[in-house]
Amino acid sequence: MSAQDNQDRKVKIGVLGASGYTGAELLRLLIGHPRVEIALLTAERRAGKPMADVFPQFAPYKLPTLTAIEGADWQKLALDVAFCALPHGTTQKVIADLLERAPHTKVVDLSADFRLADPAAYARWYGHEHAALQLQKEAVYGLTEVYRLQIKAARLVANPGCYTTCAELALIPLLKAKAIDADEIVIDAKSGMTGAGRAAREDMLFAEVSEGFHAYGVGHHRHMAELDQEFSLAAGREVIVTFTPHLVPMNRGILSTIYVRGTKASPEDLHALLAKAYASEPFVHVLPFRTLPATRHVRGSNMTFIGVTADRIAGRAIIVSALDNLTKGASGQAVQNMNVMLGFPETTGLEQVALFP
Amino acid sequence: MSAQDNQDRKVKIGVLGASGYTGAELLRLLIGHPRVEIALLTAERRAGKPMADVFPQFAPYKLPTLTAIEGADWQKLALDVAFCALPHGTTQKVIADLLERAPHTKVVDLSADFRLADPAAYARWYGHEHAALQLQKEAVYGLTEVYRLQIKAARLVANPGCYTTCAELALIPLLKAKAIDADEIVIDAKSGMTGAGRAAREDMLFAEVSEGFHAYGVGHHRHMAELDQEFSLAAGREVIVTFTPHLVPMNRGILSTIYVRGTKASPEDLHALLAKAYASEPFVHVLPFRTLPATRHVRGSNMTFIGVTADRIAGRAIIVSALDNLTKGASGQAVQNMNVMLGFPETTGLEQVALFP
Amino acid sequence: MSAQDNQDRKVKIGVLGASGYTGAELLRLLIGHPRVEIALLTAERRAGKPMADVFPQFAPYKLPTLTAIEGADWQKLALDVAFCALPHGTTQKVIADLLERAPHTKVVDLSADFRLADPAAYARWYGHEHAALQLQKEAVYGLTEVYRLQIKAARLVANPGCYTTCAELALIPLLKAKAIDADEIVIDAKSGMTGAGRAAREDMLFAEVSEGFHAYGVGHHRHMAELDQEFSLAAGREVIVTFTPHLVPMNRGILSTIYVRGTKASPEDLHALLAKAYASEPFVHVLPFRTLPATRHVRGSNMTFIGVTADRIAGRAIIVSALDNLTKGASGQAVQNMNVMLGFPETTGLEQVALFP
Amino acid sequence: MSAQDNQDRKVKIGVLGASGYTGAELLRLLIGHPRVEIALLTAERRAGKPMADVFPQFAPYKLPTLTAIEGADWQKLALDVAFCALPHGTTQKVIADLLERAPHTKVVDLSADFRLADPAAYARWYGHEHAALQLQKEAVYGLTEVYRLQIKAARLVANPGCYTTCAELALIPLLKAKAIDADEIVIDAKSGMTGAGRAAREDMLFAEVSEGFHAYGVGHHRHMAELDQEFSLAAGREVIVTFTPHLVPMNRGILSTIYVRGTKASPEDLHALLAKAYASEPFVHVLPFRTLPATRHVRGSNMTFIGVTADRIAGRAIIVSALDNLTKGASGQAVQNMNVMLGFPETTGLEQVALFP
Repeated sequence: MSAQDNQDRKVKIGVLGASGYTGAELLRLLIGHPRVEIALLTAERRAGKPMADVFPQFAPYKLPTLTAIEGADWQKLALDVAFCALPHGTTQKVIADLLERAPHTKVVDLSADFRLADPAAYARWYGHEHAALQLQKEAVYGLTEVYRLQIKAARLVANPGCYTTCAELALIPLLKAKAIDADEIVIDAKSGMTGAGRAAREDMLFAEVSEGFHAYGVGHHRHMAELDQEFSLAAGREVIVTFTPHLVPMNRGILSTIYVRGTKASPEDLHALLAKAYASEPFVHVLPFRTLPATRHVRGSNMTFIGVTADRIAGRAIIVSALDNLTKGASGQAVQNMNVMLGFPETTGLEQVALFP
Repeated sequence: MSAQDNQDRKVKIGVLGASGYTGAELLRLLIGHPRVEIALLTAERRAGKPMADVFPQFAPYKLPTLTAIEGADWQKLALDVAFCALPHGTTQKVIADLLERAPHTKVVDLSADFRLADPAAYARWYGHEHAALQLQKEAVYGLTEVYRLQIKAARLVANPGCYTTCAELALIPLLKAKAIDADEIVIDAKSGMTGAGRAAREDMLFAEVSEGFHAYGVGHHRHMAELDQEFSLAAGREVIVTFTPHLVPMNRGILSTIYVRGTKASPEDLHALLAKAYASEPFVHVLPFRTLPATRHVRGSNMTFIGVTADRIAGRAIIVSALDNLTKGASGQAVQNMNVMLGFPETTGLEQVALFP
Repeated sequence: MSAQDNQDRKVKIGVLGASGYTGAELLRLLIGHPRVEIALLTAERRAGKPMADVFPQFAPYKLPTLTAIEGADWQKLALDVAFCALPHGTTQKVIADLLERAPHTKVVDLSADFRLADPAAYARWYGHEHAALQLQKEAVYGLTEVYRLQIKAARLVANPGCYTTCAELALIPLLKAKAIDADEIVIDAKSGMTGAGRAAREDMLFAEVSEGFHAYGVGHHRHMAELDQEFSLAAGREVIVTFTPHLVPMNRGILSTIYVRGTKASPEDLHALLAKAYASEPFVHVLPFRTLPATRHVRGSNMTFIGVTADRIAGRAIIVSALDNLTKGASGQAVQNMNVMLGFPETTGLEQVALFP
Repeated sequence: MSAQDNQDRKVKIGVLGASGYTGAELLRLLIGHPRVEIALLTAERRAGKPMADVFPQFAPYKLPTLTAIEGADWQKLALDVAFCALPHGTTQKVIADLLERAPHTKVVDLSADFRLADPAAYARWYGHEHAALQLQKEAVYGLTEVYRLQIKAARLVANPGCYTTCAELALIPLLKAKAIDADEIVIDAKSGMTGAGRAAREDMLFAEVSEGFHAYGVGHHRHMAELDQEFSLAAGREVIVTFTPHLVPMNRGILSTIYVRGTKASPEDLHALLAKAYASEPFVHVLPFRTLPATRHVRGSNMTFIGVTADRIAGRAIIVSALDNLTKGASGQAVQNMNVMLGFPETTGLEQVALFP
């Protein structure tokens, strides 16, 4: 096989949990990815049906029929990469089984199951022991811009949450530089409805949430555990932030309004720190000082837009970070991580410009 | 008791099925109705809870705790009026039982169970025999503007469907006058999402229907049975129309675009016929010729707005009819019918101006 | 004239600026108000037209034709109350002129022109001297729950802003009680689109703001001046808060997420303080501890819903306040103030239950 | 220059009118097109500004600064293709001037200026003579699936309207086959708000159109002229259809519900005819019989989805056609036409899967 052939070989990928929103978003991106072949799509309740039954937009494309996980012969499938978009709970068992039978398959897990490195923290937030402790230890936290090197070498990547990606990209460089007071961070986050997933729930009906706005999970939201872990690592000390998520009557997007106090650093300094940190990153764009982002300007793209402005109270700054919760907040970053793991150019398949209007 | 006392006595009403959208809409209207006292609210799965748990907007009001229907002592309750907003199927049994025990209670049924007068038509459209044939015979179809006299004398009123009210108000006067060709009627109807009710369904999630538009139930929708019945009665011959419902990403409102061909009657004649038919009706407003309505101009009110314009094809007219599916299309008309049944001024409790913007 | 007659006499009111959203909302409420007669509607660019041309929902109602302000003979009109819903700038001149010619007319001004008591603060925030200094001194700030007595005696009431009403109702009782640290208040506010008014602007087009979310006016928004004034008065010292407004793709509603630190007071204490302060208020409802409001539950009503919960950081609480920006945030509170000024029961014409769904 | 080099040479394109929605959509697609170099972006009122000022989603991309058309040196620019997304009226003059100075430049015009082949029809619908009669004669109507061969040879392509593309793709094969009664066609069309463009208009504000639905342009809409032309050509006789456009509170998408009567052809026959006509088309997908499309399943893609079902009235069928008005309805089809004109594979740059949810 010549180098050229090798260059062009398509990798075999599978999407476990293709009937949810992150599954559909993975497909949207992977269908346009020049280096992958979609070899497996699973969906327990829809097994045996074509993908177009579940998401009609895929009707014009040739895709594998949906199957159940149970029958999968991981060894024979020999997937290069498995994206796991399953609900919390089943994930640990499925991945442990898959990696046991097909140890050369790489896994990008979009659930929260492998995001917390500390078994005690996991048990505290989830109310039970982790069922795959060895894998929990092995897993690499998949915030690409921060853990790129580790991801390159990883077999199992724990793709971060949508809220956490949005807030962490804005704050980690500042905490590392000790430029802000780690005890006075308020994150007021707003998310579109796809963040709630596709399960049939009364409180997510159009008529319930349209023409409305509200906070939820106040004081206790599992994404807090991820924030605690990553912010504490970045600051080199324990950091606990105030974090309030809200639901916005729109499909996609997260916008986090973050209130910080600079430690000697002025708002302009904070802006300069972020601009420098992300100067060569393809998917994080720091806007000019005082310019703030809107969710619609990143919709459908893998971009994170970050803006910084001064508060009228001296010493305080307001940082606003925006991304698409299904793309950079989930499936886009998952593909980005796959690209890193496989040595593809990091932007492959992720070049879509935001869809606005 | 003096006449004045009698005048001011509040009637005791009950709402069976208070946890759905039409139940909530009934409460919204009845709380402001000066002649009623809300004595009973039922909700099977929420029995024992306050109404504010189910619809927080009622938190500031004193209302009966939700109860189950089973325990209701209809005789002792001695309701003046029971509004029945239950799902199809349970309705027939519940109303039969209620009227047997409390024969002086009047019932306004918001389900489809008693709308079809013909037992054979009922069996054909619903796939089983009617379980309360005697009551089916007794029930009066509650399109107030058409059956006001019968409603005044009725004990059981079958409140019409939302789509049907919208189309029937626009077409019945024209069919009665034989002013349009009964064989060439096309009704293209569009409804807001509350028409689908509050049941948790994947296809009614915000993220499924927002930013989208589609037709459904094409070729077979149970409201067709009502249309057939009423249009045939009005025309004095069998009438079958083309009817296509669509879902619009908005909460409330139905707009029907109706294509007709005048039989000698010009579009202006059709307009004049409708304007005359509804000249003294408080809840049907015919706009000036060529002016067409929008759903937002009737939202939250009990109004129906009707507009007529000429098609560019000679002899054809386009009639557009708009109402709020939860108000005139359901609970508002139910209260209007109660007012008629009890001899109250017909507009009592229904004076709200549309909420726009 | 007998007492009964006097009781029933309708007062003559006028709405200056009836073609904007607050004008339409005033009409919606006043049409159902049993004690008023609408005698004057002005709209400069639409003078000579019927109200139904500007807002078709009013087509079924008999209302005065729109006129220009210039021709108004204030003395002859002898309005009991004039609601002034004009843009900033023209307001001062118009009200000064009106009150000079008709000194017995009472005025509720919905603009920002008379909200700031301090001429220096006005000049600083608006960039020019106030044009009616004497009236600025006379004007009473119309936050009904706080200034009821003064409003009762007032001739000119400066109706508060929407954002400010929402935040002030939540915080003034706490600041008065010195229960929170006045130097650490963060108000993250979210508003529906009607807050931006009806002027044709590219950035307010449906296709610009739908499916999007963003902050605006960060670091400088004129409502800050009102907040400074009222919070400082309540605390008895200078208070400057962090305040960030955002736009939500919905029509109506403001939700403020407010981050505070108790001074000895626990979150439960703060909740108890608010519950006590508003125990007998008809339009402020404090939810049970840990229950938070949503905008849809106050839409179209004059209610403010307030919730309090503990932050996971000890000593901090999160307060969420929600109201309809056009009702309690503007026209509803204006009618409430009129009721107070004229000695009507305060809830007259404002009994509408929220429209949800 | 080798064949390989030639293969890879990028063509120089310009977008005239880049600050509107179709301009932005062109950019979104062209940035991802591997064979083009964006050499010119014009926007009269924004000349001198970066594209990111007008559409912030383009901030991360290197693009030419916006310029005014007046200063353009067409000869020196030597564009391979100019996309013209200018308002009606200026277009004729600009294109005439451009083609005079740069006769080798190919033009895809997205306005309505060159769509009508008949000068008399143009004058009748637009109220004035065409200002570039020779070019009007030369222009090819750009409905790619129907006029592919002519487009391949064209210098000036008149890109069809969004409503017309949607209806014509559904009906032209049936009219050509004389399978439907050409005198009984009713097209009830619904469009998202981007169809109205980006001009600041009161009636397109979020608060005006959200939570609402209405018809407009009833009886007279300029797209009728295109429909008349193309349907008459297809049928070989004069065809005039009933056509009613409506506005839906969503950003993108057109759905046309089309009522037809088969001439001997059953609904199944009509479906088979369409399925056969588009069997090998990459951008028209005929769904299984009885399955109907939704706009969200084509959003952001260049796809048209067509469904056919039987009406309950014998002999009548209902055809539903859906596309994204900005993509296949405008800019996507414009890029498709460019691909045809330049001999590129027709799908180049247009492979995006629909963005749902």
